[in-house]
Amino acid sequence: MQRILNDPDNIVNESTAGFLRAHPDIVTTTANPRAIQSVFNHDDRVGVVTGGGSGHKPAFVGFCGENLCDAIAIGEICSSPTAQAFLDAFKAADRGKGVACLYGNYSGDNMNVKMAVRMAKKEGLTVKTVVCNDDAASAPPEEKNKRRGIAGEVIMYKIGGAAAATGADLDEVIRLAQKAVDQTRSIGIGLTPCTLPAVGHPNFEIKPGTMEVGVGPHGEPGMEVCELETAAQMAERMVNVIMGDDLPLEAGDEISLLVNGMGATPLNELYLLFDEAAKCLEEKGLKIYKSYVGNFLTSMDMMGASITVTKLDDELKPLLDMPCYGMGLKQR
Amino acid sequence: MQRILNDPDNIVNESTAGFLRAHPDIVTTTANPRAIQSVFNHDDRVGVVTGGGSGHKPAFVGFCGENLCDAIAIGEICSSPTAQAFLDAFKAADRGKGVACLYGNYSGDNMNVKMAVRMAKKEGLTVKTVVCNDDAASAPPEEKNKRRGIAGEVIMYKIGGAAAATGADLDEVIRLAQKAVDQTRSIGIGLTPCTLPAVGHPNFEIKPGTMEVGVGPHGEPGMEVCELETAAQMAERMVNVIMGDDLPLEAGDEISLLVNGMGATPLNELYLLFDEAAKCLEEKGLKIYKSYVGNFLTSMDMMGASITVTKLDDELKPLLDMPCYGMGLKQR
Repeated sequence: MQRILNDPDNIVNESTAGFLRAHPDIVTTTANPRAIQSVFNHDDRVGVVTGGGSGHKPAFVGFCGENLCDAIAIGEICSSPTAQAFLDAFKAADRGKGVACLYGNYSGDNMNVKMAVRMAKKEGLTVKTVVCNDDAASAPPEEKNKRRGIAGEVIMYKIGGAAAATGADLDEVIRLAQKAVDQTRSIGIGLTPCTLPAVGHPNFEIKPGTMEVGVGPHGEPGMEVCELETAAQMAERMVNVIMGDDLPLEAGDEISLLVNGMGATPLNELYLLFDEAAKCLEEKGLKIYKSYVGNFLTSMDMMGASITVTKLDDELKPLLDMPCYGMGLKQR
Repeated sequence: MQRILNDPDNIVNESTAGFLRAHPDIVTTTANPRAIQSVFNHDDRVGVVTGGGSGHKPAFVGFCGENLCDAIAIGEICSSPTAQAFLDAFKAADRGKGVACLYGNYSGDNMNVKMAVRMAKKEGLTVKTVVCNDDAASAPPEEKNKRRGIAGEVIMYKIGGAAAATGADLDEVIRLAQKAVDQTRSIGIGLTPCTLPAVGHPNFEIKPGTMEVGVGPHGEPGMEVCELETAAQMAERMVNVIMGDDLPLEAGDEISLLVNGMGATPLNELYLLFDEAAKCLEEKGLKIYKSYVGNFLTSMDMMGASITVTKLDDELKPLLDMPCYGMGLKQR
């Protein structure tokens, strides 16, 4: 394992310390070392919180910032934050207008968020939630509650954070973040497994010469393992899954297209995949209104990429266009 | 080779197409497919150009943008752009005030830039150059002309682009970019080799359990191969090389610290290394005025990282602080 580490059991503390030290213009501590908050104080806004396991940087701490999330709960590597971490993030984010907790659909996160929401209620703090389940490969449409949240979470944070910045109340922030999720579909292709530092070797396998369609960010099994394809074939396959899902996408619709790297895939390959996916979508008459390419929600040293399509309208477009400033997403 | 590709010989065209399609708010084409330009037209400024081989994204195209470079010459994977590509980038960047070509010290780039400067002169265009040679591990101080340019190039682009944005004339932009180079030292540690897609296997070796101190971005040999160390030991080793070089760094000096990933090293490890390097530098009394952590100048799927220290003063600080907007560097 060729990695830059001290103690594999202390990675989260150490990398969080570096993150806080590097970006004092964006983030700062809370009393809980497993919750950080943005330095931007907007007393008149609904608070926006997310959180999740570590090892996915820039997710989740990179989406703390201006017009994004106000506080983040931090878990161990590939493990949910505690309920206490979520609660402390809620408290840090709250400005008396309530808190929108926007997070991904994983059992540990679901459990801890629910507990934290109950704990918050006892303290008089209103928290409402949106669970991102954009991964179209992880369950059929009729079992959407089983679908994972993957890079579509970035669109959820962007829309939720922007909605809060407009001065919308809690129900409206929740409605818009939920709408972003409802109008978003993603699918990934894994090319190599990742290695958890505390384990030292991959805990799942993707054989060289093959690819895992729909792999999850922790190596959760996908839809299919097949032979490695060209970028054009991968793009077509992914676009077909998204177009074949239950979100109506018709010629003339405006969309955003986000291509997310899983960590170790070179950036030039993400741009190459973006170009292929964009061509496929445009051939179907869709109009790409906004583009994102990069590493947003990674799985440490996993190779592979996902694509995320969001169907836009006149309500979502200005929210997506709003400037924002976090380590993982800067837009002007 | 688990990569997202169509034709290994057409990667540069395809990924450049994706890059241009994704960022129409920042970059656009020129008549030469191997030169791109920024969409920001500032008719009263010196033009700033860089260029280099491909496979290092975000370098070099990611540093095209507002208050950064105005045009970029694009080479094949790990191969210099042609003289014609540099010339066409010069022409795209020129606003009648001359062009500063800021590039890295590699033999192919040196040759092609020199040729392009002569070709430009014949056409009545004045181009002056700064060659970045920040890699302290690549030759002793008395042979500085042999040193490679690595991630310190990012600081050179930032300072040069900001200098041009202040309205400085060509000689002044060159002086400031050269000053940025003179006051910058870097060193990298390689943990794995990278694989050129057209070759299909690594063309150099870093044995598991070892690390190559001072490795170049194309696998050029470093100072030393030794056993893999902890992040703290790596940071101390790198800081000692920089502090032991010929740039006087004394307690009380203000610096910027940039930690650059070589491509496949997870971002949380870059933050962890940043924290260790920052602690080492602060123990020596240096003050970190500005921090950068991320993938800036990569080597495709190589694992490893470099650190870059720039000694700042009242002239460089406002230039480093100036907002900028390119794919690879966004600052407000």
